[in-house]
Amino acid sequence: MNDLVERIRNIVGPAGLISSPQEFAPYATDWRKRYRGAPLAVVRPASTSEVAAVVRACAESRTGVVPQGGNTGLCGAATPDESGSQIVVNLSRMSRVRGIDTHNNTMTVEAGCVLANLQKAAEEAGRLFPLSLAAEGSCEIGGNLSTNAGGTAVLRYGNTRDLVLGLEVVLPTGEIWDGLRGLRKDNTGYDLKQLFVGAEGTLGVITAAVLKLFPMPKSRATAVVALENPEGALGLLERSLEEGGERLTGFELFSDFCLSLVLKHFKDAAAPFARRFPHYVLMELSDTRSGDAVAGVAENILGAALEGKAILDAAIAQSDAQAKAFWKLRDSISEAQAHEGPNIKHDVSIPISQIPEFIRTTDAELLRAHPGVRMVTFGHVGDGNLHYNVSAPEGVAPDVFVRHAAAINRVVHDSVARFRGSISAEHGLGQLKREEIVRYKSPLELDLMRKIKHVLDPDGIMNPGKVL
Amino acid sequence: MNDLVERIRNIVGPAGLISSPQEFAPYATDWRKRYRGAPLAVVRPASTSEVAAVVRACAESRTGVVPQGGNTGLCGAATPDESGSQIVVNLSRMSRVRGIDTHNNTMTVEAGCVLANLQKAAEEAGRLFPLSLAAEGSCEIGGNLSTNAGGTAVLRYGNTRDLVLGLEVVLPTGEIWDGLRGLRKDNTGYDLKQLFVGAEGTLGVITAAVLKLFPMPKSRATAVVALENPEGALGLLERSLEEGGERLTGFELFSDFCLSLVLKHFKDAAAPFARRFPHYVLMELSDTRSGDAVAGVAENILGAALEGKAILDAAIAQSDAQAKAFWKLRDSISEAQAHEGPNIKHDVSIPISQIPEFIRTTDAELLRAHPGVRMVTFGHVGDGNLHYNVSAPEGVAPDVFVRHAAAINRVVHDSVARFRGSISAEHGLGQLKREEIVRYKSPLELDLMRKIKHVLDPDGIMNPGKVL
Repeated sequence: MNDLVERIRNIVGPAGLISSPQEFAPYATDWRKRYRGAPLAVVRPASTSEVAAVVRACAESRTGVVPQGGNTGLCGAATPDESGSQIVVNLSRMSRVRGIDTHNNTMTVEAGCVLANLQKAAEEAGRLFPLSLAAEGSCEIGGNLSTNAGGTAVLRYGNTRDLVLGLEVVLPTGEIWDGLRGLRKDNTGYDLKQLFVGAEGTLGVITAAVLKLFPMPKSRATAVVALENPEGALGLLERSLEEGGERLTGFELFSDFCLSLVLKHFKDAAAPFARRFPHYVLMELSDTRSGDAVAGVAENILGAALEGKAILDAAIAQSDAQAKAFWKLRDSISEAQAHEGPNIKHDVSIPISQIPEFIRTTDAELLRAHPGVRMVTFGHVGDGNLHYNVSAPEGVAPDVFVRHAAAINRVVHDSVARFRGSISAEHGLGQLKREEIVRYKSPLELDLMRKIKHVLDPDGIMNPGKVL
Repeated sequence: MNDLVERIRNIVGPAGLISSPQEFAPYATDWRKRYRGAPLAVVRPASTSEVAAVVRACAESRTGVVPQGGNTGLCGAATPDESGSQIVVNLSRMSRVRGIDTHNNTMTVEAGCVLANLQKAAEEAGRLFPLSLAAEGSCEIGGNLSTNAGGTAVLRYGNTRDLVLGLEVVLPTGEIWDGLRGLRKDNTGYDLKQLFVGAEGTLGVITAAVLKLFPMPKSRATAVVALENPEGALGLLERSLEEGGERLTGFELFSDFCLSLVLKHFKDAAAPFARRFPHYVLMELSDTRSGDAVAGVAENILGAALEGKAILDAAIAQSDAQAKAFWKLRDSISEAQAHEGPNIKHDVSIPISQIPEFIRTTDAELLRAHPGVRMVTFGHVGDGNLHYNVSAPEGVAPDVFVRHAAAINRVVHDSVARFRGSISAEHGLGQLKREEIVRYKSPLELDLMRKIKHVLDPDGIMNPGKVL
């Protein structure tokens, strides 16, 4: 057995080491099965000091370390390469909530905590931890932090970066940086935690965090609104913010084609209106006050918009079940699109004001270059984040369509760049977009990133081949 | 004339250069007149490319560059040293609002914009730019960004860091980093802007920023609440957040001794209640909805608290004039303390839950070591930020009291450290706390900061002698 593996076994014990390829297969592949790696071993440390000792051992032998949480990432950041030389450090055994401080509205948690468990722990303490995303039943907070995860509550509560006050990080040297501060104000030098949030494990291993908690919403209003075009969505967003302010928790746009796919592939899905409209917005308001005041705010906003002909129709959910059914329409789009056939996904953001023009010009350009493609455009418009997905023309086989992937990506991402947007709004770079980003980021910015990487990790052992 | 000064004159023209000591005196001293420097020259560039050319010239001659905005900082970060060799780069002439995008809720502004002018520009566009602090009539946004300024709206809107989406920065090489993105989601690598926010000009010169705008509040409720002790303030904060959520815009604690100083030194100040109480909280709720609903929320919160004997008394302002009078009490504390005699200020933060215990133990320790000192304790309790100021015992002369300053700082800051707090919550380090911080930050964290500094500014030309 390899010396390093033996040394690691001495650190973590047999329960913390998986060194047989049969057993470590699930840790060597990403969730979408796009990447299959071959690690030297998968380590599952039980404490920060074990993580530190493992990283130190890897540093001394210049061995690549691949940090991994729930392994639900979409860009391959947590998958080792195929060299058989890298060590996957899976944090899942570090899943303790170290403490909840209700007066400070914070909780201190370990990296391996599953997001849904943290939501529940907060709720049991009478608080809201607002981060919420599709993978919440299995993704872990260390991964959420490392990818600066977005999700459905960004409009009101921000990205994961906005939800963290302090971090504990094992550095590429194996040293432990204790930045677990629970302070809302601290201006004593560079805010180092910002470096590790969103770095996808390339600068160190996040082992614990102090997270912000919020008051629990006690009432909610959910509506689907019918619109002529995306411009109408911007107008409605503006009205909703002006009147509802921070009550506005969700604002999701989807086209009628998205709805048609959901209705086609989910037999129990029901259209929100008797007739069909070109576009829809799913909006949600919530309030810490109980009662129906928030429903009144929604009625005011939508009533005035209808009267001013700014929207075509609106349906406010009359029950929790109906609210869930509305959300289900939105949440089923990705899966419906998968049933429909091959597609190419883009997770982009642009300034909110540019969304209508972006959709119009990108649609036109794509249809010119790739006649028959079908745009499945939806997303968190309140955050400027579109999932601009492109389905194959009807009847085109996956192996044929996939040949156009690079060209389609080029059209979409070049368009994003013209609008000063981002080609990865919430999913990160990982392996998937590591080369693509070189086309869109300035050489100066890439150089700054490389300098930061080099000074913190001069031997390049932290998650090699990711991001940079 | 010095070659460098001549070269700079060629870049910025005579209107952009101040090289006579008589004229540059106001730029060579800080606002509190604690530091008096002697620069080689003061440069007032009119554009980003001029800033870049000036910094390049300084880089080539390894000359120190001291960025300066409105020069209202409290820690001497914008004051040059006395060597006569440094160049002050004052950004005040770069005061253009480059654009406001109401649909994106952003504005793009130059570093030299005075904060109050930005508040006004936002208001004219029907939006709120929430950053607000005492110096807003003369401080500039570049300085606010470089010090990550706090102020009175942090509880709801966050620190300056939370208000910025993109930056334009002149690097220590003289290169311009264009990070002026107006995106709420962008996960394409390290979030470089975070490095420059709060770096007090030691990593580069911020020349422009994209700032977030918010819906305008249209109603407001302001109250003064009487409390037995700081524990009562925590209980009231919890109730207010649970019921009022993000309506809670202000939550300021002050002791009866603070009030007594204000009443003593400001003849037109009126006590909020007929009798006196040990502690007070000034709280403010605001809402994007007009009308008196927000006053109802305040009445609910305070009514329930009175009924449960969680508070001793409460007065909700019945007019704008009364609300202003309540705020005036809070805002006059610093000045009243100055009238009262010599004092030593501390701008600290600790976890909110620890505030009562921090006040109790620090008071006791100080009184043991320095009998007769009078604590003037007030601050943004909703952010965990206390201005824990210490007034001299009655009758003690300034020159006598000042000899105890270092010992008093030691007691207070050691106590802060025991509570895992920060010795500079919102004012930064500058020159003032540059040595003090070495005692409280871990060697590892200081080492990380030095590495970041060195890799971005290997010759150490950016604001030498500040922060690190």
